[in-house]
Amino acid sequence: MGKLRIGIAGLGTVGCGTLALIERNRALIEQRTGQTLEVVAVCARDRARTRPVDLAGMRWFDDPKALAADPGVDVVCELIGGSEGPALETVREALRLGKPVVTANKAMLAHHGAELARLAEQAGVQLAWEAAVAGGIPIVKSLREGLAANRIRRVNGILNGTSNYILTSMRETGRDFETVLAEAQALGYAEADPSFDVDGIDAAHKLALLASLAFGGRPRFDAIHVEGIRHVAAIDIAFAEELGYRIKLLGTARMTPEGLEQRLHPCMVAKDAPIAQVNGVFNGVVVEGEDVDAVLHEGRGAGAGPTASAVVADLVDIARGTRVPTLGVPAERLADHPIAPMAAHEGSYYIRLMVVDRSGVMADISAVLRDHDVSIEALIQRSRNPGQAVPIVLTSHETTEARMTAALARIAELEVVLEQPRMIRIERL
Amino acid sequence: MGKLRIGIAGLGTVGCGTLALIERNRALIEQRTGQTLEVVAVCARDRARTRPVDLAGMRWFDDPKALAADPGVDVVCELIGGSEGPALETVREALRLGKPVVTANKAMLAHHGAELARLAEQAGVQLAWEAAVAGGIPIVKSLREGLAANRIRRVNGILNGTSNYILTSMRETGRDFETVLAEAQALGYAEADPSFDVDGIDAAHKLALLASLAFGGRPRFDAIHVEGIRHVAAIDIAFAEELGYRIKLLGTARMTPEGLEQRLHPCMVAKDAPIAQVNGVFNGVVVEGEDVDAVLHEGRGAGAGPTASAVVADLVDIARGTRVPTLGVPAERLADHPIAPMAAHEGSYYIRLMVVDRSGVMADISAVLRDHDVSIEALIQRSRNPGQAVPIVLTSHETTEARMTAALARIAELEVVLEQPRMIRIERL
Repeated sequence: MGKLRIGIAGLGTVGCGTLALIERNRALIEQRTGQTLEVVAVCARDRARTRPVDLAGMRWFDDPKALAADPGVDVVCELIGGSEGPALETVREALRLGKPVVTANKAMLAHHGAELARLAEQAGVQLAWEAAVAGGIPIVKSLREGLAANRIRRVNGILNGTSNYILTSMRETGRDFETVLAEAQALGYAEADPSFDVDGIDAAHKLALLASLAFGGRPRFDAIHVEGIRHVAAIDIAFAEELGYRIKLLGTARMTPEGLEQRLHPCMVAKDAPIAQVNGVFNGVVVEGEDVDAVLHEGRGAGAGPTASAVVADLVDIARGTRVPTLGVPAERLADHPIAPMAAHEGSYYIRLMVVDRSGVMADISAVLRDHDVSIEALIQRSRNPGQAVPIVLTSHETTEARMTAALARIAELEVVLEQPRMIRIERL
Repeated sequence: MGKLRIGIAGLGTVGCGTLALIERNRALIEQRTGQTLEVVAVCARDRARTRPVDLAGMRWFDDPKALAADPGVDVVCELIGGSEGPALETVREALRLGKPVVTANKAMLAHHGAELARLAEQAGVQLAWEAAVAGGIPIVKSLREGLAANRIRRVNGILNGTSNYILTSMRETGRDFETVLAEAQALGYAEADPSFDVDGIDAAHKLALLASLAFGGRPRFDAIHVEGIRHVAAIDIAFAEELGYRIKLLGTARMTPEGLEQRLHPCMVAKDAPIAQVNGVFNGVVVEGEDVDAVLHEGRGAGAGPTASAVVADLVDIARGTRVPTLGVPAERLADHPIAPMAAHEGSYYIRLMVVDRSGVMADISAVLRDHDVSIEALIQRSRNPGQAVPIVLTSHETTEARMTAALARIAELEVVLEQPRMIRIERL
């Protein structure tokens, strides 16, 4: 039986989970691949730290590049993280030496994916990254292989479990963002510095990669319109419910006549849409292909088990000799799609205004919308507290972001409008 | 650029859909594989029939084995169907000649999968069958590759769109099976002879294949406990709703201490379980792995587009040089798992009895259940029509099929029980 000698760089949750999984499922993996996966070398910053795995018999490296260069290592798992620095150097070194690489590093791929894909193809080895997007859901394989016969129309994904947990919990409890975030932090679902998760950065890294696979372009993190969930208020979640929607932090990539549109922001989606059922810490991705129609994938997007499942699946692929282009098409064929400007986005909008409750308010607002060619689909104006602040909620018919933005700027200037208008895009699924 | 010369045997919906897709997405597939897919030969029973595709320039064969033997054909797509006869002979011939095969034929694989896997491996070629299970959902790839690092605990699938459409429509309209079936036939969702779909045969073929992938055993269609949906009554669907369940025709495979349990029958699943949201003609598969937890896949399980998407994805794999064991493990390592007898199944049950509405009835029934060690979890006994037939509905705590069957046999003999008791298993998800 052949043997695949693995070096693991990075012994955090995912690195230790990968070690444990390889050990536990040794016989199963041998049955499935005809090869033994053996971790022969590891690397981390702090050798002294206590870890839940047995490192006996493995060579220790302080420098991950040295691990990659170890002639006894056939495959390198880069589980260090970070878009630059040691992770990037380690992967470059491994590929330069003609060694296949498995990585869970979405930030690195979102920024350097095209370069690394080229290096992997020049070396004739696999650069595999199932674990970088949506953890345990084999969405990279689905898009790159399982749905490869389709012209992709759109990809929609709930790609960050922390944000989805917060939005779900806000809906279930009626509490506000800050309260639920604090609870998520206490439960370990959110980091002390939650910015990467709640401001959409993490999900946008993943969206850049899914968009690359779906549309055959190089990953363009910088081209993504990113908004997080901090501005989603409890009252918006309640109004969404009333209007038949759920609010999700959704990543969307689609090809438009203006170019590739990539957006990562809170969205209202119909309550009965399959992706609206993806709750809590779960991730979900819907791929819409011309022939296949819509395919939903739902599962755990993070955690030691699901992420290790993805890392080891990539190792199984490598053991079986599978080699597919890193980003779905050979690196030299990656397109540089024009970027659709956000102003050109067409869609419907949810708008919430806090206004003074007095006559003539709706007339003023309607006039502005009419002047900007925005037509109203639904309107909620309920509580009557003469002279007090009351919410007015409306949804628009299909319009452009440019028109809506201009209308809202004008509405914000109205004397009766007390706060900055809140806007949440509606995604038709 | 390399060229993959394809022979398509069978020009029904799927065959013509495959031809059309290859033609339409030629440039896309070239970008993704670096190869041209070209259909050079076709075969069907009736040459004269009008078809929605242009066959100009393709060699015509009346005999699919002759198509497989054509030295100008590199890959054979078997889209004839049927577990024996021409389909089987064609696949054997192609593999014998060392040609990769793509098939959508679940019946053939459920009966002859282990033999064909062995032939493919002896020849060193791919026998690919994504289209055989759940149409456009790349579930074969997910199980065989994407989740290959996991010890699989259980696979649950809604694997037949016709049955799911009927059950969904029964729930939404309150109508009975016969009425909804007639409507499905009129809409083209059900065949004139619906037996394969509504009696569970088609779904059981697919379950045998998913179980093989999940547990590394040879497909054993004969080992599946199969029940269709004909006996599901409108009243049971209403009671399910009241108890918080949906009724689905579910295929389940799991490893138990008694061996591999494979069941295909109507099930009650919790209303809020992800698979309960898979409605209409859609298919859904939940894979539960030790590390990944539960992953749901949902999409279209049939139709020209989704099925062709799967066939051409397999061709893309072949063009890329991917080769993985047909059934996830090399054929000589396929296990012959002991078969868990249905009597040993442990689970909860929904029971509906039609009884005479008079005092003492519940006492009689409860006594029988107690004598068989079956304990009641919930009970609905509502309408009061003294002397008339009324339903009594109960759900049991976890028990064995053997106990429940014995108790029901005894209950059926009670004088107050007017009809054969109806039993639907509850699947905890």
